Amino acid sequence: MGLRIFGVDPGSNHTGWGVLEVSGSKFTYLAAGTISPKGELSQRLVGIADELDAHLATYKPDAFAIEKVFYAKNINSALVLGHARGVAILSAARQKIPFFEYSATQIKQAATGRGRASKEQVRQMLEMILGAPKKQPLDSSDALAAALCHAQAHHVQNWAQDAR
Amino acid sequence: MGLRIFGVDPGSNHTGWGVLEVSGSKFTYLAAGTISPKGELSQRLVGIADELDAHLATYKPDAFAIEKVFYAKNINSALVLGHARGVAILSAARQKIPFFEYSATQIKQAATGRGRASKEQVRQMLEMILGAPKKQPLDSSDALAAALCHAQAHHVQNWAQDAR
Repeated sequence: MGLRIFGVDPGSNHTGWGVLEVSGSKFTYLAAGTISPKGELSQRLVGIADELDAHLATYKPDAFAIEKVFYAKNINSALVLGHARGVAILSAARQKIPFFEYSATQIKQAATGRGRASKEQVRQMLEMILGAPKKQPLDSSDALAAALCHAQAHHVQNWAQDAR
Repeated sequence: MGLRIFGVDPGSNHTGWGVLEVSGSKFTYLAAGTISPKGELSQRLVGIADELDAHLATYKPDAFAIEKVFYAKNINSALVLGHARGVAILSAARQKIPFFEYSATQIKQAATGRGRASKEQVRQMLEMILGAPKKQPLDSSDALAAALCHAQAHHVQNWAQDAR
């Protein structure tokens, strides 16, 4: 069995998640989805946490990858995004899954070779590289792309170690 | 037994908490403290969540009060504060404790009668009103002040209902 990587793209209304497996130089899609909880903020946070807890318990990933955030429209949207992101990081940390952050540019670069690719281009490359289902929601493909970015970083690192 | 109110003042490095009891027009201090978790962000979030979970299970409050945030130095500090705040709200929501938000001005007003009082003035009034311990950390007194603000709002509401 290869290394399993779980990616997440948090948001208080839609949180994407995706899992892939790395075996040697082969990357395989396992699962992905979008959590769209209902109700007021506190209930939505419980929805995100409960569903992520369940997926992490099911797939038992070896690593958890998430996008680093530098930009937000304003203080309030940064705060609300922070709520969802904190809850997602908590889910992984409580299950003792090592946590890795990559910038949006690194994630796009890993999927397409271009740091400024569109979300649709990223999704299309994931279909080719991972055999991911066609035209999934962009929150799910963004989450898978974060996982792929860690997979490539890990793969390159292993290759560099083997070459020593 | 009166109504128990749990207040929290979240932060990724120091999270204050405090509990008080309202019985008729009497407000009584029960407990307060500061959670100062160590390690990287993900570990600190687990520290905050675990300790809040434990205090909420111990004191079984009827309400959870937290300061509304409108202001942060920059996007990054709003994000990090959002992480701690999201985790705190999650703890309360998972234990199904109703959640109330008050502005900093409302909270200061409730404790001191002045919306622009200093943190030290708020703390001093809590010592007088609640019999809270002297010179506790300001994170703890801010958390207690949020609880007091909800206690007063609730008290006024009850009084208004009784007067009908």
